[in-house]
Amino acid sequence: MNEAMKEQLFKKIAEKHDRMVDMYRYLHAHPELSFQEEQTAKYIEAFYQGKDCDVRTNVGGRGIVVTIDSGKPGKTLAIRADFDALPIQEETGLPYASETPGVMHACGHDAHTSYMLILAESLIEMKEQLEGKIVVLHQPAEEVPPGGAIGMIKDGALDGVDNVFGIHVMSQMEYGKVFYREGNVQTGRANFHVKIQGVGGHGSSPHKANDAIVAASYFVVAVQSIVSRRLNPFDVGSITIGNFDGRGSFNVIKDSVFLEGDVRSMSEATRNLIEKEIRAKLDGVAAMFDVTYELDYDNDYPVLYNDPEMTAFAANALQATDMPGVNAVERCEAQPPSEDFAYYAKERPSVFLYVGASPEEGEAYPHHHPKFRINPESMTIAAETMGTLVIDYLNGGSGK
Amino acid sequence: MNEAMKEQLFKKIAEKHDRMVDMYRYLHAHPELSFQEEQTAKYIEAFYQGKDCDVRTNVGGRGIVVTIDSGKPGKTLAIRADFDALPIQEETGLPYASETPGVMHACGHDAHTSYMLILAESLIEMKEQLEGKIVVLHQPAEEVPPGGAIGMIKDGALDGVDNVFGIHVMSQMEYGKVFYREGNVQTGRANFHVKIQGVGGHGSSPHKANDAIVAASYFVVAVQSIVSRRLNPFDVGSITIGNFDGRGSFNVIKDSVFLEGDVRSMSEATRNLIEKEIRAKLDGVAAMFDVTYELDYDNDYPVLYNDPEMTAFAANALQATDMPGVNAVERCEAQPPSEDFAYYAKERPSVFLYVGASPEEGEAYPHHHPKFRINPESMTIAAETMGTLVIDYLNGGSGK
Amino acid sequence: MNEAMKEQLFKKIAEKHDRMVDMYRYLHAHPELSFQEEQTAKYIEAFYQGKDCDVRTNVGGRGIVVTIDSGKPGKTLAIRADFDALPIQEETGLPYASETPGVMHACGHDAHTSYMLILAESLIEMKEQLEGKIVVLHQPAEEVPPGGAIGMIKDGALDGVDNVFGIHVMSQMEYGKVFYREGNVQTGRANFHVKIQGVGGHGSSPHKANDAIVAASYFVVAVQSIVSRRLNPFDVGSITIGNFDGRGSFNVIKDSVFLEGDVRSMSEATRNLIEKEIRAKLDGVAAMFDVTYELDYDNDYPVLYNDPEMTAFAANALQATDMPGVNAVERCEAQPPSEDFAYYAKERPSVFLYVGASPEEGEAYPHHHPKFRINPESMTIAAETMGTLVIDYLNGGSGK
Amino acid sequence: MNEAMKEQLFKKIAEKHDRMVDMYRYLHAHPELSFQEEQTAKYIEAFYQGKDCDVRTNVGGRGIVVTIDSGKPGKTLAIRADFDALPIQEETGLPYASETPGVMHACGHDAHTSYMLILAESLIEMKEQLEGKIVVLHQPAEEVPPGGAIGMIKDGALDGVDNVFGIHVMSQMEYGKVFYREGNVQTGRANFHVKIQGVGGHGSSPHKANDAIVAASYFVVAVQSIVSRRLNPFDVGSITIGNFDGRGSFNVIKDSVFLEGDVRSMSEATRNLIEKEIRAKLDGVAAMFDVTYELDYDNDYPVLYNDPEMTAFAANALQATDMPGVNAVERCEAQPPSEDFAYYAKERPSVFLYVGASPEEGEAYPHHHPKFRINPESMTIAAETMGTLVIDYLNGGSGK
Repeated sequence: MNEAMKEQLFKKIAEKHDRMVDMYRYLHAHPELSFQEEQTAKYIEAFYQGKDCDVRTNVGGRGIVVTIDSGKPGKTLAIRADFDALPIQEETGLPYASETPGVMHACGHDAHTSYMLILAESLIEMKEQLEGKIVVLHQPAEEVPPGGAIGMIKDGALDGVDNVFGIHVMSQMEYGKVFYREGNVQTGRANFHVKIQGVGGHGSSPHKANDAIVAASYFVVAVQSIVSRRLNPFDVGSITIGNFDGRGSFNVIKDSVFLEGDVRSMSEATRNLIEKEIRAKLDGVAAMFDVTYELDYDNDYPVLYNDPEMTAFAANALQATDMPGVNAVERCEAQPPSEDFAYYAKERPSVFLYVGASPEEGEAYPHHHPKFRINPESMTIAAETMGTLVIDYLNGGSGK
Repeated sequence: MNEAMKEQLFKKIAEKHDRMVDMYRYLHAHPELSFQEEQTAKYIEAFYQGKDCDVRTNVGGRGIVVTIDSGKPGKTLAIRADFDALPIQEETGLPYASETPGVMHACGHDAHTSYMLILAESLIEMKEQLEGKIVVLHQPAEEVPPGGAIGMIKDGALDGVDNVFGIHVMSQMEYGKVFYREGNVQTGRANFHVKIQGVGGHGSSPHKANDAIVAASYFVVAVQSIVSRRLNPFDVGSITIGNFDGRGSFNVIKDSVFLEGDVRSMSEATRNLIEKEIRAKLDGVAAMFDVTYELDYDNDYPVLYNDPEMTAFAANALQATDMPGVNAVERCEAQPPSEDFAYYAKERPSVFLYVGASPEEGEAYPHHHPKFRINPESMTIAAETMGTLVIDYLNGGSGK
Repeated sequence: MNEAMKEQLFKKIAEKHDRMVDMYRYLHAHPELSFQEEQTAKYIEAFYQGKDCDVRTNVGGRGIVVTIDSGKPGKTLAIRADFDALPIQEETGLPYASETPGVMHACGHDAHTSYMLILAESLIEMKEQLEGKIVVLHQPAEEVPPGGAIGMIKDGALDGVDNVFGIHVMSQMEYGKVFYREGNVQTGRANFHVKIQGVGGHGSSPHKANDAIVAASYFVVAVQSIVSRRLNPFDVGSITIGNFDGRGSFNVIKDSVFLEGDVRSMSEATRNLIEKEIRAKLDGVAAMFDVTYELDYDNDYPVLYNDPEMTAFAANALQATDMPGVNAVERCEAQPPSEDFAYYAKERPSVFLYVGASPEEGEAYPHHHPKFRINPESMTIAAETMGTLVIDYLNGGSGK
Repeated sequence: MNEAMKEQLFKKIAEKHDRMVDMYRYLHAHPELSFQEEQTAKYIEAFYQGKDCDVRTNVGGRGIVVTIDSGKPGKTLAIRADFDALPIQEETGLPYASETPGVMHACGHDAHTSYMLILAESLIEMKEQLEGKIVVLHQPAEEVPPGGAIGMIKDGALDGVDNVFGIHVMSQMEYGKVFYREGNVQTGRANFHVKIQGVGGHGSSPHKANDAIVAASYFVVAVQSIVSRRLNPFDVGSITIGNFDGRGSFNVIKDSVFLEGDVRSMSEATRNLIEKEIRAKLDGVAAMFDVTYELDYDNDYPVLYNDPEMTAFAANALQATDMPGVNAVERCEAQPPSEDFAYYAKERPSVFLYVGASPEEGEAYPHHHPKFRINPESMTIAAETMGTLVIDYLNGGSGK
C-alpha cells in the first residue's frame, strides 16, 4: 500500500516540478545572510497560507515549524530544511544569479527550501492517507555559529518529535545517486578567538618592547604539533588559524595580535583534546615570551551522529523504493564540513542524507565557491527521498 | 677674536629667545606630515623675506636652501635642520599642543627649525665678521623613506659645500649637555614588503589548500635565527616584522599574507648580510611550503658616519667655548634610530651632534611617543652649539 | 564433511597442547634477532625431520618453506608464521623468560611458530583427507626492514601459491575472540636517514660557523606541518624523528647532525605525499640555512591490504565453525603497526587475521614492551583458526 | 732610571732566548689537559728550585705562586700565566708537536709559561733594583669551568696583591704589535645542561607517547628569539646549543633528550637576562608539550673587565718604552672568547693585554684549531711587555 502512496507522491512532485524550479530560482536570486533572513522567512510563511497545516513562526529566531497532523495516532517525524545564504559574491553567470551584491546561496539551502515546500504541500494534500504527524523544520542560520537549530530546539521545535531526518544536496556527488552513512558522518567544530598581548616599541630597540607578532608566529608553529603528535593518526582532526591580524607599521614592534581559528574533529574526545592542547600552546607561548593572552574558545556544532538504526531504516527504505531519476542508494565516506543538524541528532535518533547534485554540464565546484552550482533536478530526487522516508516511517514500510 | 664673535652671537640668541620660543610653539601647534609640509615650508620662506641672504625654495621637493655669503673667500659649511612631523595623536596636554588631529611634532623637528631660523638671522646680522659661506638646509621629510635629504642633494643642495653639520635635540639626554661620537653613530636601515602566496580553502580540508598563515609564521620564526646565528655578536643588527596582515575568516584557510619589516645595522656589510639572509629565509619557506613570494626590499637610510676629523674639530671647539647653559660636552654611545642626515655624510665629511633636552620636570618620554616633550631651553643650547661651530669652522678657531 | 575434519583437527590440536606450550616456552627463552635467527631456523627444520612433507631451507635467507601435498588436484594455500625476536631486555619475570640478554620475543612470533608447527604436523597427519597443497612459510626477520618476506618471495616461496593467510596474536585484544578487517588494515611504512651538514665553530663566534643543530631543529619543527596541513584529516599518517644525533661539546657549534625517521600511512598515495613533503622540508632548510643534506629514504613495508573477497571468505568460515575456546569472530579497527606480510598481500589475494591473546591475569602490555605477555592458550585458537581456513579453503567449505 | 733597568732586562731576555724556546718546545710536546697538569706543574716547580724566591705549590689545586720580594717597601703586583692544554689532536706537523695523542697546546699556554719563567728568573736576578713585590701566578685549568683561577684566589693567591696583569699571545693578531683595550674586553660565559623528559612510544602511535625530540627542537627554535628580540642590538650576546643528544631508534618515539649549551655576553646584566630567558623558554616548552625538564645552569667565567686606569697606565708605559721587536702598541676590539683571568679582575683592578703572534709564514689558524701555531718570537715580546709593566709599576715609571 505504501508503494501506491509513494507513486502518488512522486506524481504530485513531478506535476509541481516547474513551480519548484521557479521557487528555487526566486530564492537563489534573493539570498539573505544567516540571522538576517527576514524576507525568506516571510516567503516561506506566505507559502503555507491557507494550507491545511499548523504554522508557527519566529521559532527560536526566524524559524518556522509547520505541523501536518494526519489526525490518526502514530509517531511524529521532523524533517528539516535550512534557508540562509553566504557572504560570497556570486560568479556563476546564471540568469537567476543573486541580485544582492556579496550574498549568495552557495550551499544549496535554496534548493532545500524549495523541495521541502513542494514536498510539504504534497504531503498536506495526502495527509488523510498518513498516520501520526509530520513536523517540517524550516531553519535559518545554519552557516554561522551558534546556528539556527539550537534556538529552535530551545523554543520547543522538537517537542513531541520522535526522530529527525535531513537532506543536503551535494554539488560534487554524482547526480542520480542518494548517499548514506551511519555513525559519525560530519565533523564537530570549535572556533576560537585569541588576543596575544605584548608590548609595542620601536624597531631599533626590540629589548624595550615585546614583539607580539613573533609570539603569535611561534604559537601558530606550535599548533602544528597538535595534529601531528597529539592526535591518534587513525583519528580525524584539523586546526586552522584563518585570521592573523597583526597589522601595523613596518618599523614599529607590534604590541598585540588577534587570531581566529577553526577546529574540526570526528569525536567529542578529540575535540576536547584539541581544546586542551590549544590552551597548553597558549600557556607555553605566554611563559616563553612573557606575553598575556585572552582566549574565547567555543565548541560550536557537535559531531553529526547518524543513528545506526535510523540509518539502516533509511537505507533499506530507499533501496527498496523505485524513485524516478535515482540510479543508486550507496554508503559514502564521512564528510569534512560541520552541520548544525548535529544538534537535532543529539536530541533525537536522527539521520542526515546526501542527494547527489553534480551539475548536468560544466565543472562541479565545491560548496561555498563563487561558481557553486547544482543540478536543479536533484530537488526532485530530494523530495522523492524525503517523501519515501516519511511514508515508510509513519505508515510502516519496507524499511522496517 | 672668535671668542668675541661668539659672545656677540650668544647675546643675540638670548635677546631673540622669546621670539624663538613663540616660533617653536607655533610650529608645534601646526605639524605637517612628511612630504606634506606645505605650510611649514611657507612659514620658513616667509621668515627669510627681506633678509640679506639668498633663498632657494622647492629644492628637491619642499626643501629650502638659504645661503649666507660673507663676501669673503673661505670654506662653505652647510648646517641642516629638518621640519616634518609624525602621524601620532599628541597626548602632552601642552597649551601649544598640536591642533591637527593625528599629527604631532614628536621628534623635535619644530625645535630644530626654530633654533635654526634664529641662528640664521643672527649670523646674517653678523656676516660681515665671517669668512666663506653658510648654507642653511631646511629639510622636509626626514621621517619617511626615501627621506628629504636625498632629493635635496640631487637638486644641488650640496654644490660647493665642503662639510655638513647637524644637530638633534634629545628628550632622554640630560639638558645642559652636548654629546658627540665619531664613526658609525646611528643605524642604517632597510625596509621590506613581502607577499606570501599560498592557496585558499576550507578549514576542514587543509590538504586541498596551502595555508599562507602557517608559511608566513614559519618565516617569522626562521627570521629570528638571522640575528641569533648569522650576525657577529659584537655587531649591531635587528629585524622587526612590524606588519603581519593575515586577516581572514576563522574557518577559511588564508590564501596569502602580507608582511612588512624593518632592518637596522651599524655597517653596510651587516645590512647586506641581513638582506641576503632574509632572501634565503624566503627561498626556504617557498621550498618548504610550496608557496611563492614577492619581495620588495629597499635599503633606505645608510649608517650615519661621523667623520672622525670633523667630530674631533667639533668636540674640541665646543669644549673650548664657554656656552651659557652648557655644563659638559661629552662622548656618547651610538644611537639606535636611523637618520637621513646620513645621506649628507656620505657626500661630504660631516658630523651630527646631540643636544640634551630632557624636560625640566616630569618624565622624559622617548621620541615618537604621544607624550614626547623637550625642554625648550635646549633650543638656546642648540643655537649656541651650531653657532660656535660655524664661527670656528669658517674663521678658524679653537677646534683647529 | 568439513565439519568432521575440523573436529578431528581440533582434537589433534588439543592432544598436542602440552607439546605446543613446551615449544613456545623453549622458543621464548631462546630468542634471536632479525636476520640472525640461526638456531631458531635449525629448530624448525629439525621439527619437520622425518615428517611426510617437503622442506626447503635457506629460502631467501633463513626462510623455511614446507609443502604439504595432498596428492590430489586443487588450490595451493600458503600459511605464514614469522620467527624473529626484538632487541629488548625482557622484564616479565616469567619462568621461561629470555636467556639471552637484550633480546626478547616481545611480539609473539614464538607463539606463531609454535602453533604453526603443531598445526602443520596435524595437517600432515590428515593430508589424505585434504585436496590441493599447503605451503607453510616459516619467515625470519619480520621486525627489521627490508624484512624476511621480500627475500622469500624473490626466492620463489609463492611459486604456485594461489592465496596467503596469516595470523597475529594480539596481547591487547580480548582472549577468546578472533578479529578480521577487509581493505587497508595495517600501515605502510618508510624510514629515512638524513645528515644535515653545516660548518662547525666556536660558540662565541656563530657568524663564522653554521649551526647544524639549529638547522636540524627547524627541520623537525617544519616536519610537524606535513601531517597538520598537507594530509587529508580523514587520512592516516604519522612522521616520527626517532633519532636526533647532534652530540657535541657545549661550547662548540655543531658541524653536522644525523637524523633518522619513521613514516606511517594507510595508502600509497599518502606515503608518496609524505616523502615528497619531507624532501621539500629538507630543501627548504637547505635554502634557509645554507646547509647541505644527504637523504636516504626507503619506502619499506607496504600498506597491508586484506583482499575483501578473501576476508569475507575467512570471516564467514570462522563464524560458521564452532571452534573450542572462541566466543566471537568480529570486525575490528585497522592497526597502527606495519607488517611485512604486506609483501605477500601485494603478490596474491591474501588475508591477515588477529587472534585475541590478552593475558589471563595482570596488565595487557603492548607489543614491543619489556613486560609484553600473551595468554599462551591463544595458540590453540590460532591453530584452530588457521586450520579451519585451510580445510574450508582447500576442500570447499562454509566460507564459499 | 727605569729605562736603564728595562734595557738590562731586555738584554737578559735576549740572552736567555734559546732556553726559552727550548722550554716552549718541551712544553708544547708534553701537553696536559685542564685539571690533570701533573707533570707541567712539576716542571714549573723544578725551574724555580734554588732560585731566590718563595715558591708555594698546590695552590687551589695545581697552582704555583712564586713571590719575588725586593725587600723594599712598595706595592705588590701579580702577573699571571696559565699552563693547561686542550683535548685536540695536533695537526701542525711541527718537529716539537704534541707527543700525547688527542692533547694539544692549541691556545698558547705553553708560550705563556715559557716567557713567564724566563721573565721571573730575570726579575729575580734584578730584584735588588726593584721595589715592593712580584707575585707570579702559574695557573692551571684555564680552559675548563670552573677554571683554575677561582681556586687559587680562594687559596689566598691574591693576598696582599694590589693589582694583576696578564698577557695572551694571539695567533691571528699581527706579530710585532701589542694590544690593549679598557672596560669589558672578553665575554662572560654560562654553560647549561638540560634534560627534557617526555614519554617514549611507538612511531605509529604518537598520541600514546610524548615526543621529547619534538619538544627539544621547539626549544632550540625558541631560543633563537632571545638574541634576536630580547637583547639590546647594541649589546653582545650569543647562545649555542652545542650538544643535542637525542639518539634513538628511527621508529621509537624518544622519551628524553639531553642538551648542553653555551652563553656569552659582555655584561653581567645581559648574562642574567639570558639565563632568565632560557628558563622562560624551558617553562614555555614544558607548558606547551607537557614535558618536564631538569636544568643545571652555571654562570662560569665573568666578563673580563680591564680597569680603565690600569689600562691607561699599561698603554702609556708600553708606548713610552722602546721594546725590541715591537712596532706598535694599539687599542684593539673586544675579544669573543671568555677567559678566567676575569676572576682576578673582579678581585683587584687588573689589565689583560694581547701580544700579536701571527706565524712568520703560513696561515694564521685560530686558537683551538688543530693547526694552531704562533710565532715563538712573540714570547720575547711578551716578556718585554710584562717586564716593562713590572718595572714601571713597582718603581714608578713613564706610565704614571
